[in-house]
Amino acid sequence: MRRERVRALLAEVAEGRLAVDVALAQLDHAPVDELGFATLDRHRALRQGFPEVVFGQGKEPAQVVAICERLESHGDGFLVTRADAALRAALQGRWDAADVNAMARTVLLRGAAPPPRGTQAVAIVTAGTSDLPVAEEAAVTLDAFGHPTMRVTDVGVAGIHRILAQRETLAGAAVIIVVAGMDGALPSVVGGLVEVPVIAVPTSVGYGAAFQGLAPLLTMLNSCAAGVTVCNIDNGFGAAVAAARILAHPR
Amino acid sequence: MRRERVRALLAEVAEGRLAVDVALAQLDHAPVDELGFATLDRHRALRQGFPEVVFGQGKEPAQVVAICERLESHGDGFLVTRADAALRAALQGRWDAADVNAMARTVLLRGAAPPPRGTQAVAIVTAGTSDLPVAEEAAVTLDAFGHPTMRVTDVGVAGIHRILAQRETLAGAAVIIVVAGMDGALPSVVGGLVEVPVIAVPTSVGYGAAFQGLAPLLTMLNSCAAGVTVCNIDNGFGAAVAAARILAHPR
Amino acid sequence: MRRERVRALLAEVAEGRLAVDVALAQLDHAPVDELGFATLDRHRALRQGFPEVVFGQGKEPAQVVAICERLESHGDGFLVTRADAALRAALQGRWDAADVNAMARTVLLRGAAPPPRGTQAVAIVTAGTSDLPVAEEAAVTLDAFGHPTMRVTDVGVAGIHRILAQRETLAGAAVIIVVAGMDGALPSVVGGLVEVPVIAVPTSVGYGAAFQGLAPLLTMLNSCAAGVTVCNIDNGFGAAVAAARILAHPR
Amino acid sequence: MRRERVRALLAEVAEGRLAVDVALAQLDHAPVDELGFATLDRHRALRQGFPEVVFGQGKEPAQVVAICERLESHGDGFLVTRADAALRAALQGRWDAADVNAMARTVLLRGAAPPPRGTQAVAIVTAGTSDLPVAEEAAVTLDAFGHPTMRVTDVGVAGIHRILAQRETLAGAAVIIVVAGMDGALPSVVGGLVEVPVIAVPTSVGYGAAFQGLAPLLTMLNSCAAGVTVCNIDNGFGAAVAAARILAHPR
Amino acid sequence: MRRERVRALLAEVAEGRLAVDVALAQLDHAPVDELGFATLDRHRALRQGFPEVVFGQGKEPAQVVAICERLESHGDGFLVTRADAALRAALQGRWDAADVNAMARTVLLRGAAPPPRGTQAVAIVTAGTSDLPVAEEAAVTLDAFGHPTMRVTDVGVAGIHRILAQRETLAGAAVIIVVAGMDGALPSVVGGLVEVPVIAVPTSVGYGAAFQGLAPLLTMLNSCAAGVTVCNIDNGFGAAVAAARILAHPR
Amino acid sequence: MRRERVRALLAEVAEGRLAVDVALAQLDHAPVDELGFATLDRHRALRQGFPEVVFGQGKEPAQVVAICERLESHGDGFLVTRADAALRAALQGRWDAADVNAMARTVLLRGAAPPPRGTQAVAIVTAGTSDLPVAEEAAVTLDAFGHPTMRVTDVGVAGIHRILAQRETLAGAAVIIVVAGMDGALPSVVGGLVEVPVIAVPTSVGYGAAFQGLAPLLTMLNSCAAGVTVCNIDNGFGAAVAAARILAHPR
Amino acid sequence: MRRERVRALLAEVAEGRLAVDVALAQLDHAPVDELGFATLDRHRALRQGFPEVVFGQGKEPAQVVAICERLESHGDGFLVTRADAALRAALQGRWDAADVNAMARTVLLRGAAPPPRGTQAVAIVTAGTSDLPVAEEAAVTLDAFGHPTMRVTDVGVAGIHRILAQRETLAGAAVIIVVAGMDGALPSVVGGLVEVPVIAVPTSVGYGAAFQGLAPLLTMLNSCAAGVTVCNIDNGFGAAVAAARILAHPR
Amino acid sequence: MRRERVRALLAEVAEGRLAVDVALAQLDHAPVDELGFATLDRHRALRQGFPEVVFGQGKEPAQVVAICERLESHGDGFLVTRADAALRAALQGRWDAADVNAMARTVLLRGAAPPPRGTQAVAIVTAGTSDLPVAEEAAVTLDAFGHPTMRVTDVGVAGIHRILAQRETLAGAAVIIVVAGMDGALPSVVGGLVEVPVIAVPTSVGYGAAFQGLAPLLTMLNSCAAGVTVCNIDNGFGAAVAAARILAHPR
Repeated sequence: MRRERVRALLAEVAEGRLAVDVALAQLDHAPVDELGFATLDRHRALRQGFPEVVFGQGKEPAQVVAICERLESHGDGFLVTRADAALRAALQGRWDAADVNAMARTVLLRGAAPPPRGTQAVAIVTAGTSDLPVAEEAAVTLDAFGHPTMRVTDVGVAGIHRILAQRETLAGAAVIIVVAGMDGALPSVVGGLVEVPVIAVPTSVGYGAAFQGLAPLLTMLNSCAAGVTVCNIDNGFGAAVAAARILAHPR
Repeated sequence: MRRERVRALLAEVAEGRLAVDVALAQLDHAPVDELGFATLDRHRALRQGFPEVVFGQGKEPAQVVAICERLESHGDGFLVTRADAALRAALQGRWDAADVNAMARTVLLRGAAPPPRGTQAVAIVTAGTSDLPVAEEAAVTLDAFGHPTMRVTDVGVAGIHRILAQRETLAGAAVIIVVAGMDGALPSVVGGLVEVPVIAVPTSVGYGAAFQGLAPLLTMLNSCAAGVTVCNIDNGFGAAVAAARILAHPR
Repeated sequence: MRRERVRALLAEVAEGRLAVDVALAQLDHAPVDELGFATLDRHRALRQGFPEVVFGQGKEPAQVVAICERLESHGDGFLVTRADAALRAALQGRWDAADVNAMARTVLLRGAAPPPRGTQAVAIVTAGTSDLPVAEEAAVTLDAFGHPTMRVTDVGVAGIHRILAQRETLAGAAVIIVVAGMDGALPSVVGGLVEVPVIAVPTSVGYGAAFQGLAPLLTMLNSCAAGVTVCNIDNGFGAAVAAARILAHPR
Repeated sequence: MRRERVRALLAEVAEGRLAVDVALAQLDHAPVDELGFATLDRHRALRQGFPEVVFGQGKEPAQVVAICERLESHGDGFLVTRADAALRAALQGRWDAADVNAMARTVLLRGAAPPPRGTQAVAIVTAGTSDLPVAEEAAVTLDAFGHPTMRVTDVGVAGIHRILAQRETLAGAAVIIVVAGMDGALPSVVGGLVEVPVIAVPTSVGYGAAFQGLAPLLTMLNSCAAGVTVCNIDNGFGAAVAAARILAHPR
Repeated sequence: MRRERVRALLAEVAEGRLAVDVALAQLDHAPVDELGFATLDRHRALRQGFPEVVFGQGKEPAQVVAICERLESHGDGFLVTRADAALRAALQGRWDAADVNAMARTVLLRGAAPPPRGTQAVAIVTAGTSDLPVAEEAAVTLDAFGHPTMRVTDVGVAGIHRILAQRETLAGAAVIIVVAGMDGALPSVVGGLVEVPVIAVPTSVGYGAAFQGLAPLLTMLNSCAAGVTVCNIDNGFGAAVAAARILAHPR
Repeated sequence: MRRERVRALLAEVAEGRLAVDVALAQLDHAPVDELGFATLDRHRALRQGFPEVVFGQGKEPAQVVAICERLESHGDGFLVTRADAALRAALQGRWDAADVNAMARTVLLRGAAPPPRGTQAVAIVTAGTSDLPVAEEAAVTLDAFGHPTMRVTDVGVAGIHRILAQRETLAGAAVIIVVAGMDGALPSVVGGLVEVPVIAVPTSVGYGAAFQGLAPLLTMLNSCAAGVTVCNIDNGFGAAVAAARILAHPR
Repeated sequence: MRRERVRALLAEVAEGRLAVDVALAQLDHAPVDELGFATLDRHRALRQGFPEVVFGQGKEPAQVVAICERLESHGDGFLVTRADAALRAALQGRWDAADVNAMARTVLLRGAAPPPRGTQAVAIVTAGTSDLPVAEEAAVTLDAFGHPTMRVTDVGVAGIHRILAQRETLAGAAVIIVVAGMDGALPSVVGGLVEVPVIAVPTSVGYGAAFQGLAPLLTMLNSCAAGVTVCNIDNGFGAAVAAARILAHPR
Repeated sequence: MRRERVRALLAEVAEGRLAVDVALAQLDHAPVDELGFATLDRHRALRQGFPEVVFGQGKEPAQVVAICERLESHGDGFLVTRADAALRAALQGRWDAADVNAMARTVLLRGAAPPPRGTQAVAIVTAGTSDLPVAEEAAVTLDAFGHPTMRVTDVGVAGIHRILAQRETLAGAAVIIVVAGMDGALPSVVGGLVEVPVIAVPTSVGYGAAFQGLAPLLTMLNSCAAGVTVCNIDNGFGAAVAAARILAHPR
């Protein structure tokens, strides 16, 4: 029951056109989603110029296309993540204007009124080249939300000078996303080098005792650099949203 | 080799008092920590009015007292975390002015020039009363760093109206720390209600298949609310530092 | 030794045609399954108008067809679960009248005398669209057993208003099955909203630290809503049978 | 904002004593818990003659006494679970009339108007004598809720005749709770013997590869008897509430 | 319904004193345990001169004493395993004649008619001295069952000559129990040296990645010597019973 | 250095044809496997009419054919396990006389002098039809070693009368192999019904929390029937060898 | 800023062509990797005649070819590990002279100035034939680095005489790499036979409770032979580098 | 049968004083440990001036004292590891001259002829102060074996300048042992800074998702610095022996 409808109901009561008990009964049965709790519907808020996000994994291409057509009809654009080759082809075939990123496995159609461009950048740091798809997913997501990104790639701690050489880049970032598989040690070093928020993303890169990302996940949760927080394995999208939450409001 | 020393060396070279090869050799052997990499020493930056933090677990009371005496001699104050009853007694006995918090297991001695008081608040939300010690550790840490906190307690999702009733409090927070054991479901709900950063802390509260916090840890890593990030089990201190990283600089 | 045979044996003893020792020896060697322990043979009881259930996974299509032909010859109909595309095609090719459900991966042939239609409904609630196959398996199973179902879909807790808006539907259910992957938090919320039995089914939906359903499984076992019980991962069939057990007898 | 307050507000609007916009604003800020969502507050419903339940583990005796004093002041009585010896002594010292059960680790104070006595019984079946404390917790909880119980003890499957000899008892139960540690095999046998709901509770009884209850937990989740549902390890209380949910309403 | 009672019933039918239907009804309700299924009650068979076994862990000394008094009244003697110091003292205090073995944590009271002494020996092999308590539990159990044992101690594979030097002893055994913690490698070597049955028992000896016996358990399950079977961690009693099963009947 | 060669060497020394030092040096360099340690070379012992066993998994068909040709040249025959379709075809193509068992994934070529037929039978019991391949591997292996087998299939504990009805068959077995996936409860029941050795084999049959056989493995290790021993998951071959060890020598 | 550049800068200062402050600023901004920290860049050191190593897994053939072309342009040669058939074909097609090893999954192109041949050999010992690919990867790597290797294959501990027969070979090695799957017991035996460094490599060979190499990994970490160190599962390359570290410098 | 005895036996044969068959029989029964396999008895080799090592954990003080008295009687001295306070007191009370190290939990009695002092040093690097007991155990062990050690303490990667500042110390080491708990990231950085062997030791330092050392163990096994090898959790002694193996022989 949107606020306008409640106002109308109250006006009817005030004008004597609606009995108190009838109004009470109507309020009793108003579903929560009609009460106009703005903060309850996160999607609406994010949708202010932002594309809606569709998780493509495990869905049929036809299903995703149908969902995206509905989203596009609202004028919002969309971002499809975890889109495999078949899904990317289906979406590209339907929307010429869509940005397809094979490495990130994303398809982005910008809305009519894209979000304003942010002024603060997110640094996306990767330990190895195999971590790039996860980093790219984060980058595409942040781009879709209007936040500039900087890439620092292949700076794993086994060659510690590589990350040290990037201190200036890191110093220019408002938030840092660190993506690493195998030993997952990079966020501990980065967390010690900077004071800004550090979001760690373990990847399933590696083999054997990496156990599909369990090893770097545990490493990051136990980071000796205080204040590093962690996302799910391979969750570049989640890290980007976490960064967007930090950047969303002036502080 | 602090910057002043490098300048002096260069001056000697410029004045012809030092041969190029000798200067080169001295630069060769300068330890990195003398090169003046400001960002390398996180502690110094944090120490600008902040207390140093000592992890008390597994240390003898006498050791911790000795460490704290050294810290106090720098005029910085200190915050001891994971202080058991014996350690708290030892510290209280040595410093009358220290703030001892038995539930948080912390001892705080404020420095001569405490950090300026922040204007933005961190909401600390707990699912059950057993999660309070972890929440309290986070609160004491944030207080020591100068950030105001708000408490929202006992709002586990089994009585969903409890957290919904706190929407206004949540809306007033710049960052939200959610502390939960057992099913660890609360951050998913909170993450859907707000747009600000949400930091989830699993606790070891529970029994059986909670596996000392593994269950809520996995829940939080898989949160269906995008952009929730996670700390180690029972790591209230880490969550507070993560919040402080977010609040540290204007955005 | 079915009850009739025991009666006949006793009659022979009464008539003096069978010596006591011979009768005793025959009773001694009667296999348990012939003693007419009605409760021992669950299948017979369930078969009163119900289809027999065949677990299709890991069986050759020809094997399953053969099993189903035998079942059909008893006039009972059958329900095949976990039927992949090849198996569904084989069964459809053999029985035109069979109901094939690709999403649920089931094939149902109703018996000559289907079970009477129940009057109490089971609500099947899903957190996300990817949980639908498991929910559908539960729904088809309940339908085969004669129980009406209601669907509440895509009401994950990250948008808490979605489940709250369905309170009236939930209030009309005699049993609620909640199907969720990823964080598995939905049963905790539903369990707090209703007083009827809540059966939670974790799904293998998700990635990374979801560990093929381990994360929601642990969440549900640790639900902060008391009295929620849990089935195996992806076990929609088991949840339906658990609901049918509850509905089977008047209370 | 309880229903009465909304009615009063509407009356004021009807009488012209309150402007529509002011009434609208007051409704806007009404916390959800005041909107009279009856189903949201499960505790109130359960409290109709039922004692409130307090989880005693990890709380100071003084804290629990204080909580119970508040509950008693409502006239409701209380049930404290996971009460160790010290807590039991503290509660017994404060309330002479309380029923203390050392094996179940419970303290029960019946309310002024206890719930009506149910007519349907719950069978509580244990595999070994070491499983008795968990069974006892379930029994005390069901008793507090007004449901009669029957005990079937020490009927582990290694002596299969023991459970078979209890078929008549099982046949008389409306719900069966099966408590087992070690191999956790008993629910699979019981689930095959009866058609009523079977709730399985793994216990931490055992050693070595029992891994504190993990082994029977997995056994039960994979029960080859369809429709068996599972509670957390050692969670006798949860199993009792699940049974109470089943028995709560006529079907 | 013991066989005698069935015979009496049949006699009554034969004599015309009992109607067929009444007899049928009585048979219907005869509990299985009264039908004289000799093989169902393993304990009775084992009791032929063997002591009954009581698992002492987690039981109060008074409880165990009471159980043992009942057993002794049958003239059977008893074997209590996992008896801690308090329990051992209680039993010793009650029965002077009991054999108390502190390392094995056992108390044995031989029955009036102990089982006949076997002629075939079981070799009990341990990798290190810390594995001795588990080996001793196996030895006491076998002794109680009448089987001779041979000990081969401290022959871990890091000094491979130690086990090789014992080939003659091994060659004289009818069954070999191998007890090992840490790497659990010894059964693989022994299994390759002999052709008799090898029963492996992992122990919780070790630290760190031994994970309380998980490491040797997995090692033994994956033994490269074919035909090695495995017991639960620290389960010396179980290994002894497995050996007794092998030795029980001539082959 | 086979015993004959040592004897020859000694004879040469005795005859003065070989100097002591030369003989000593030859003995020094004799590989251990030539020293005639009969018990060291298990394979030779088993090879007395038994086929050699080749583990086919992960080997190229051509490799396995080559190995088998070498074995056949010794006149021993061979048994290839874990042979997939391609490997089975390759072996069948090479040896017409080979027995190919697709379900067991085995290829058996009997040797010129097959082992004598044993008189004692091994019962192979399976809980469900999906467990048959593992049971079949055990059966083929025992057959190759000359031991008769009996099959008891589809007697899972959810229909407890099924296994009880087979008591006579079980009573006729010298050893019982119990194969079960999912809850793995069957060995506990069988172990309680018989006194002969029971060897439990968990299978990877099941889904979800069966975790590829981990659930039944843990169940079996924690069996409440004493003296049940356990093999690796899906290891039908190992169970057969364990049974053969028991049957190998008269007791 | 390589050392030459720092020297040039100092020379300019000495000659008065560069002001001290300007030189200071240039030094301030010199990335760490240009400061000539020889030990920081491990790759340069290794590149002294050694091939660079490229981890092929998860990379596109075209990507790897491009990387290798760059490496070859430096005259260094390269070693590609984890190269599947497609990648091996692509590299072989591009470089005729490359050594392709299908079993080791490696492609090696020797540099213009290969490293000098070492005089000390590494023994690579394998438990079973299925462990050979991992052993081969280690052998190819050591060969590329100039170290001779010796192979000892198929000496698993179930036939203990096999490894004992190789004592002389082991005695001639400066370092021993032991590769084993399944029970992973071999390093414990080898570690007890020799005094030289023993590097253990678990492999994912096996099935069931081998859990993709977890079982031998735990075995090796708990080796009862002191001083055995362990590499990641299947990490033949890592073991070779560990051996090369040991052999790199005279001691 | 030592070589001398075989020579004597051969001489008797040569001299005709011993029949060939008798000599053959004596050789047949010679235990392997008498065959003079020098390398089989590692202890003897290590004992050349080295103390014997006794693992004190889980042994009674009286037992350890007895063992040490026997060792001392050989003139060898001894090193007891994992000695708790009671054991340390018992040993100190018996041997005044013993070196007791409470932090390392060791008691060392040097032998009459201690091993010669090595010239090459082992660097023992720790991430945090809580890792010191493990490092100290390694240091005491190396000292007992005659190898000099250097300590680099509290250089965790969160303050990366700390380890960089120690490059010169690291450069002077022949072997480096890196001890770290929590995230276990330090060996990856050290492994990239040096070319000498790096032995990583995870510790159980930390809490929550450190899981008693599992987290750093996995980190180290997945180290992105090639050639780092790993010991068991908290196994400082093992790391020291691994280093001693490397230093034992000139290369």
